[in-house]
Amino acid sequence: MENIEKDISKNMYGLVKDLFPICRSITGNGVRETLKIIKKQIPIKIYEVPTGTRVFDWTVPEEWSIKDAYVLDESGKKAIDFKKNNLHIVGYSIPINKTIDLSELQEHLYSLPDQPEAIPYVTSYYQKRWGFCLSEKDRGKLKRGKYKVLIDSELKKGSLTYGELIIPGKSKKEVFLSTYVCHPSMANNELSGPAVTTFLTKWILSKSRRYTYRIIFIPETIGSITYLSKNFKTLKRNMLAGFNVSCVGDNRSYSYIPTKAGDTYADKVALNILSFKWPNFIRYSFLDRASDERQYNAPGIDLPVCCVTRSKYGAYPEYHTSLDNLDFVSPEGLVGAYEVLKECLVLIEENHKYKIKCLGEPQLGKRGLYPTISTKSSAKMGSMRNFIAYADGKNDLIDISEKIKTPVWDLYPIIDKLTKVGLLQVDLKK
Amino acid sequence: MENIEKDISKNMYGLVKDLFPICRSITGNGVRETLKIIKKQIPIKIYEVPTGTRVFDWTVPEEWSIKDAYVLDESGKKAIDFKKNNLHIVGYSIPINKTIDLSELQEHLYSLPDQPEAIPYVTSYYQKRWGFCLSEKDRGKLKRGKYKVLIDSELKKGSLTYGELIIPGKSKKEVFLSTYVCHPSMANNELSGPAVTTFLTKWILSKSRRYTYRIIFIPETIGSITYLSKNFKTLKRNMLAGFNVSCVGDNRSYSYIPTKAGDTYADKVALNILSFKWPNFIRYSFLDRASDERQYNAPGIDLPVCCVTRSKYGAYPEYHTSLDNLDFVSPEGLVGAYEVLKECLVLIEENHKYKIKCLGEPQLGKRGLYPTISTKSSAKMGSMRNFIAYADGKNDLIDISEKIKTPVWDLYPIIDKLTKVGLLQVDLKK
Amino acid sequence: MENIEKDISKNMYGLVKDLFPICRSITGNGVRETLKIIKKQIPIKIYEVPTGTRVFDWTVPEEWSIKDAYVLDESGKKAIDFKKNNLHIVGYSIPINKTIDLSELQEHLYSLPDQPEAIPYVTSYYQKRWGFCLSEKDRGKLKRGKYKVLIDSELKKGSLTYGELIIPGKSKKEVFLSTYVCHPSMANNELSGPAVTTFLTKWILSKSRRYTYRIIFIPETIGSITYLSKNFKTLKRNMLAGFNVSCVGDNRSYSYIPTKAGDTYADKVALNILSFKWPNFIRYSFLDRASDERQYNAPGIDLPVCCVTRSKYGAYPEYHTSLDNLDFVSPEGLVGAYEVLKECLVLIEENHKYKIKCLGEPQLGKRGLYPTISTKSSAKMGSMRNFIAYADGKNDLIDISEKIKTPVWDLYPIIDKLTKVGLLQVDLKK
Repeated sequence: MENIEKDISKNMYGLVKDLFPICRSITGNGVRETLKIIKKQIPIKIYEVPTGTRVFDWTVPEEWSIKDAYVLDESGKKAIDFKKNNLHIVGYSIPINKTIDLSELQEHLYSLPDQPEAIPYVTSYYQKRWGFCLSEKDRGKLKRGKYKVLIDSELKKGSLTYGELIIPGKSKKEVFLSTYVCHPSMANNELSGPAVTTFLTKWILSKSRRYTYRIIFIPETIGSITYLSKNFKTLKRNMLAGFNVSCVGDNRSYSYIPTKAGDTYADKVALNILSFKWPNFIRYSFLDRASDERQYNAPGIDLPVCCVTRSKYGAYPEYHTSLDNLDFVSPEGLVGAYEVLKECLVLIEENHKYKIKCLGEPQLGKRGLYPTISTKSSAKMGSMRNFIAYADGKNDLIDISEKIKTPVWDLYPIIDKLTKVGLLQVDLKK
Repeated sequence: MENIEKDISKNMYGLVKDLFPICRSITGNGVRETLKIIKKQIPIKIYEVPTGTRVFDWTVPEEWSIKDAYVLDESGKKAIDFKKNNLHIVGYSIPINKTIDLSELQEHLYSLPDQPEAIPYVTSYYQKRWGFCLSEKDRGKLKRGKYKVLIDSELKKGSLTYGELIIPGKSKKEVFLSTYVCHPSMANNELSGPAVTTFLTKWILSKSRRYTYRIIFIPETIGSITYLSKNFKTLKRNMLAGFNVSCVGDNRSYSYIPTKAGDTYADKVALNILSFKWPNFIRYSFLDRASDERQYNAPGIDLPVCCVTRSKYGAYPEYHTSLDNLDFVSPEGLVGAYEVLKECLVLIEENHKYKIKCLGEPQLGKRGLYPTISTKSSAKMGSMRNFIAYADGKNDLIDISEKIKTPVWDLYPIIDKLTKVGLLQVDLKK
Repeated sequence: MENIEKDISKNMYGLVKDLFPICRSITGNGVRETLKIIKKQIPIKIYEVPTGTRVFDWTVPEEWSIKDAYVLDESGKKAIDFKKNNLHIVGYSIPINKTIDLSELQEHLYSLPDQPEAIPYVTSYYQKRWGFCLSEKDRGKLKRGKYKVLIDSELKKGSLTYGELIIPGKSKKEVFLSTYVCHPSMANNELSGPAVTTFLTKWILSKSRRYTYRIIFIPETIGSITYLSKNFKTLKRNMLAGFNVSCVGDNRSYSYIPTKAGDTYADKVALNILSFKWPNFIRYSFLDRASDERQYNAPGIDLPVCCVTRSKYGAYPEYHTSLDNLDFVSPEGLVGAYEVLKECLVLIEENHKYKIKCLGEPQLGKRGLYPTISTKSSAKMGSMRNFIAYADGKNDLIDISEKIKTPVWDLYPIIDKLTKVGLLQVDLKK
């Protein structure tokens, strides 16, 4: 088991590394390349939604592609070079090719005075613009004079691309995983998400399942809106619980962002697992949301999708800069999040209403489930007797776990033992 | 706006000053004079309820009037003189005219050992008595000997007087303001109440209204019981929220006394406004009630009437003494309470259920309601996006304000903007 | 009253002393002798349930009797002697008569390294075994060599014995007291239970009753399971509130163990009385249960039975050892618990919904229930006016007591006064 975990963590980190160099955006070949690499691991289907398609209040934008971009100083040296780091270009920059004064150039530059070493990540999807991002330090080195600016990009009709995998189970009820593939070279937000989701998917495929799993790899915001607009009825009818998987690669903390309602089935599952596994996890408010949970919890949508993350988007200084790189995430960071999310899925599979078949306490001693000698310390009720006390057909496993303050993974073997001796009845309805 | 506020605060303080010298009681010409002065400002109707009228468990008492009262010492000097301060006489004192020993006089004197400078306020409405109130200091100066005691008062059939103004709105549902006019020369409890209520009424009259406003100026306790006994069915049917307006003139604090239920609409409104405007307000229990909220929340009555006050009756040392005078209240103290109560009324008018018309998050950028460029700091959701997230047709404005931790006055302009671009739907039912 | 309390406390302690020497177990003559002594005080009926009777998931075991038991060393001295302390024998030990080596004997010895002076209490009801219990200190003195072991016991078909008293009231609704009589010479757990229950029963018999009282003296666990299996329907239909009475004899603390639901009528009553009488009482969780509340709250049973104890089973070091003796309990300890439980029963008898007959506050002054003079301090509402405010026909006495933060024993005289003047209406339904 430990070896398997090491393998998984290495492989997840390897996938992050493979995907890192690609210049992704909300549309275009970066997304397609990314999905192709993932498809080598798990059998996703790839969909294209044409530019101009109306999706709720939004419209699928033109497709953006970029070949090169740089700023040349008077000596012909590249002061800024997209080929060195794809964060240097403002996402969706229109093409440009002209020579301008530094003062004019400055209006198109983005840097972070508080993080002088970091290149910021900036986009302008819905307003035609061009711009370059660079570190405050490099910006300070620009001298007065003329600069030749070249952006060899294209905006034209095309499509928005996303991947989807539906893994059927015994029940039509669905567990939903959503992750995004639209950021250029940044590791925690976002490549940790697709990597962990890919390996969770492999694990789901490897086992027998009660529930159906719906797993999507989409561009953020416009992608979730597009996916919702095409699948809303099904999602609304079948979704049991969903998780937006993002920022799951660093080592610093575990975090939780609730759904808008705050008490959906997804919240209950996530809170149960986190509170026993990582009791010091950071509990955010829905007001701290910043990713696709926004769309899944929008008014009228209200799907039970919450987030279990490590250092949450917007809450770590490296977020949306070049510092969110391959050093910021780690194999251990990835596998920690993988394990928590896996436990969430295991719990969803096992979380039924349990009921002891006899009236009164069963006599455990005669079944070899309890010491036959009674001493002073017998006054303490163990987990099995506590489980039995609440196994009344009304409490589900999460309820019981919380009432008896015992993690569900300590209850699985108890359920097995009681089932084997015929004392336990399970209500699989959900 | 600041000038208007200054005007209002000066005028409220002026009204307190004008009303201060009048010797009020629960019946009689003091109340009538007071109401006549208020009527010059707002068009109240004045009602008279005859002595002997049965009102629930009580009976309207005889009307009391007083022309003069004093205690003369042997040298013919006035040791106590009603004309100097109308608190010197126990309210509802019967007439008396005799010469007695100091020892006998002492049995009819009231003073406060703990506040030696203060003349206490004492009444005996339902038991025939006579008495004088004086400061402990002056009482100590009384020498042995004979005193001539004169009280030129009268108790006879008459009536109980109160004022009422009903300002119709589009809806029959009513907002209720109750204040009292039965205390002699004391400023915070009680003249601040009628003054603030008068100027709130002027403000209500100056604007278009959804709701009907019922505003009454009554004697405390017997007045509210009388008013309830005559209007109970209408109040019960129509009252949306009510406020007992009293002790709204000093500068020390803001306070809140809940209804008996504690969670009526009036409580929700008051708590929302106070918690954002004056987060350090004192939150009393219903057990701390002491004014007409008692009657409005009596068993079987149970109307949604709470109190928003500054230093609450019984909770400041000057209460019910001559120290509760024109120095204890101030224009700023009055206008502070006025503003809080006005915000409560504004909120009642604006507190509807709001619903975003589209499914999913609306695209704010294309409507000029959101920056079109996305940077690191875009991760923070602003008030508008938070408002939208909860504007699902189920939450009213108070719910939204509390869920997104934003004062309602910051949401009014957001509602305006979203309404203007046609994104917002309002449910006016209440 | 104080003298009566002294008498009761002396007599309860006397009963504990009388019952102390008897060697009880879950069946046999020890229980019968105990019940016979109790029957001299209160008219219980004694029941016998034959060995082999199926009771839910359990079976009534064979009856155990013991005449003598000892361990002789090589010099013929009694190293362990049942006649000196009946805790020396493991409960339900099978007969034995042989000479063995110390090393073999050791496998049948039980002692407590952490409490070297204490003889532990050990039983083996459902697995055939033999054994001796002794202090760690005495165990250390045993020298190598041969020991003659004699246990003159018998296990044979017989019956399980219990006592029951049903005291009818005006209503069929029942108040339930359960206590156990199956432990040998230990005082707090358990003889305090039968002693306090016996004297509560005397008090119940001495007064007029609204409710029916069902009081049982049973062996723990198998006794409550047996009793439940024979009376479940009646108990389920009629039980208003029940208390498992045990560990009610020491001086250290007051404690409370909730029902599984935590908010049954029994919990409400116990919490109300304890929180006003002994606000520092220890509030345990249902997970800390260890006595017959387990059975009464088993899944499917779910009767409203909680525990009010002093030092709770399992929570004091003397528990289940020879240190839980006549010095550990005291007359004062017993009477303290007796008083708390008696107050619980008084409250159940008096806990109705009260309603003031008039609308609005009644005029208390005219009925001599309130001062007719109003001064500064009149602003404080007293208990009577607070009682009236909540006496709306919806709150019962417990609700009122909690809302107005006043113990019920301060409200009984108020109820009397208001009833006398005809202001109060009582709803006896329950």
